[in-house]
Amino acid sequence: MKRHFDDELKQLKDKLFRMGLQVEEVIAKATKALFERDSKLAEEVIKKDQEINLYEIEIDELAHELIALYQPTAIDLRFITMVLKMNNDLERMGDQAVNIAEKAIQINQEPPMKPYIDLPKAAETARGMLRDALDAFMKRDPDKAKQVLERDDVIDGINDKVYVELQTLMRDKPETVRQGVALIMVSHNLERIADLATNIAEDVIYLTRGIDVRHHIRERRQETAP
Amino acid sequence: MKRHFDDELKQLKDKLFRMGLQVEEVIAKATKALFERDSKLAEEVIKKDQEINLYEIEIDELAHELIALYQPTAIDLRFITMVLKMNNDLERMGDQAVNIAEKAIQINQEPPMKPYIDLPKAAETARGMLRDALDAFMKRDPDKAKQVLERDDVIDGINDKVYVELQTLMRDKPETVRQGVALIMVSHNLERIADLATNIAEDVIYLTRGIDVRHHIRERRQETAP
Repeated sequence: MKRHFDDELKQLKDKLFRMGLQVEEVIAKATKALFERDSKLAEEVIKKDQEINLYEIEIDELAHELIALYQPTAIDLRFITMVLKMNNDLERMGDQAVNIAEKAIQINQEPPMKPYIDLPKAAETARGMLRDALDAFMKRDPDKAKQVLERDDVIDGINDKVYVELQTLMRDKPETVRQGVALIMVSHNLERIADLATNIAEDVIYLTRGIDVRHHIRERRQETAP
Repeated sequence: MKRHFDDELKQLKDKLFRMGLQVEEVIAKATKALFERDSKLAEEVIKKDQEINLYEIEIDELAHELIALYQPTAIDLRFITMVLKMNNDLERMGDQAVNIAEKAIQINQEPPMKPYIDLPKAAETARGMLRDALDAFMKRDPDKAKQVLERDDVIDGINDKVYVELQTLMRDKPETVRQGVALIMVSHNLERIADLATNIAEDVIYLTRGIDVRHHIRERRQETAP
């Protein structure tokens, strides 16, 4: 029985990884659809999201089955509930990719405004964070996960720059407001994807080290102590 | 032992409800801080969020303890993992309230741009959705939960209007771009709060009726069938 549980746990882990790869793919396609003005690719992303949603439910059900059937120990249980959480985070990243794809379709109908200098950098960073978070999860590598956390500031920095640039452009050329607002939303979507990748990385660190890096709990506990 | 488990389950439920009330309060305060130009109130929201984050971890730990100690049946297990999910959704709503509070502090430093006609309506709707989702959870009332889902379109409608209005304003008066973008982000934050309230309502329906309304799964399965 123990042997069997380990196999199923491995299967759950593999499924989550495959879910992650699919989400990474839609993020890549959605941003490519925007940067290369390819609305057909954006449509693909929107369609693909339905598959991802079904895959989320499949993983969710398997995880619940494993808990109910095997009554795992505290540490295996924590692994499974973390998979539930990561699964949900991945599905939300898929939703963000859909939002980007929808904006791409809107923007691609209008004449190009200006080269997307910093936005592709944000997209590449966000995708890289997801890829590394998944890798850290598969290898149970807390150091790799820590590197993901560090890059959250990088993407925030790029985004701040994008915001300022786009606001300046909109102020100088009011006809760019519609497209500028859409691009700010894309920038925000990428920030959310990075945040969700950060969540996954935090969960990996928690699982491998047993330290709750969520909300930097120790510092906070000191701060709020009476 | 069974008796004890029921008590602890009730305690978990009550804790989640109290978490929800705290989140509702910060949403109310954050939006009030913006609409009544009260930056001190906005600072309170930012501080309060740390307490909410700690409360999330407390609920998370209790839920895991219950699963590990009592090895609940499939249905109780599903209830507990739903609490984990709702707990996470509530914490994310708290983060959205912080985002609104930060934008309020920024906007309150500048002269007022125009009356916030539709934004307060969106804020009231989002808060109402959270309140009703919590209520539906406590009373295990799927009909009340369904009403929450229906209001998601209402808030999307208000937000679309806010977007169009603000974009027009920014195009006509380029000096309003900075504030206009900040308000669009607030509008987006409210939309996210409503989405998260919708998630909770969906979970309540799932728990009480056993129907997976997430992603409207049945329709989707038909659509993606070969």
